[in-house]
Amino acid sequence: MIVYRDIVPGDLPALESMLRRISEFAPDELPVANEVLEGSVSNPAGSGYYTVVAEVDGRPVGYATYGSTPLSRGNWEIYWAAVDPETQGRGIGRELMRRCETAVKQRGGWQITLETSSTPQYARTRRFHASCGYTEIARIPDFYDRGDDLVIFYKKLG
Amino acid sequence: MIVYRDIVPGDLPALESMLRRISEFAPDELPVANEVLEGSVSNPAGSGYYTVVAEVDGRPVGYATYGSTPLSRGNWEIYWAAVDPETQGRGIGRELMRRCETAVKQRGGWQITLETSSTPQYARTRRFHASCGYTEIARIPDFYDRGDDLVIFYKKLG
Repeated sequence: MIVYRDIVPGDLPALESMLRRISEFAPDELPVANEVLEGSVSNPAGSGYYTVVAEVDGRPVGYATYGSTPLSRGNWEIYWAAVDPETQGRGIGRELMRRCETAVKQRGGWQITLETSSTPQYARTRRFHASCGYTEIARIPDFYDRGDDLVIFYKKLG
Repeated sequence: MIVYRDIVPGDLPALESMLRRISEFAPDELPVANEVLEGSVSNPAGSGYYTVVAEVDGRPVGYATYGSTPLSRGNWEIYWAAVDPETQGRGIGRELMRRCETAVKQRGGWQITLETSSTPQYARTRRFHASCGYTEIARIPDFYDRGDDLVIFYKKLG
């Protein structure tokens, strides 16, 4: 049985260990991912990070973190989303995205942006976002590294 | 005589008062601008904000704040740039931009992005960036508010 709920402090060890097992993430991304997770646990309003967790049989197997863009009235961002490789393919990532979108609408947001990389390593991630209804709206060359562009996706919430 | 130098704590009162006199900035932007300024004074390495100040006759009359983009190897951003309305038209803004670009190159960056608004209020700002060699590379609709798009400019450093 899959349960979706807000993050709790006890989720951190399992989620941080899961992140280390996901091949897309580079080692320098892990401290940033962990900082975002920890902010959403200890002080969501102050950090501006909110995290939804997916739990299977009492074990956290995925999460998505969203927050409102500073100085924006209606744009929110999904900062990070990850699902345990062992439980991928069951629609958990898609449902996490949907939960973020519902929460953003409830808080008065009207659209979501998210950022990813143009490299082949992230091709599956880009296809996943497109299949969730996100449109590629911008690309900034050599942003992350030479040959590694920033790709911005966005979705208007109905 | 115009002097360009790194920010010092004593600049804060004059720069914060200057920001209040600049009509482009909305009231909700001032706390963010001040936070960025204060970060660059108290802890540039920790905050990731570096500020160059322009001083005329011993008085700070403008500044620009830049920093490296997290998780990027070569992209830097100019977060904020402002010149006192009374000393505009003397090329101070342009020289502040140039100083940021030189500093970014010295630190190994190869390009700069900056963000502004699509509204008529920022038309002069957009023309200024274009005249400094920045290209509009992305536009995200309704980002700041309905009808107020995000415009991203960028410039490759030679």
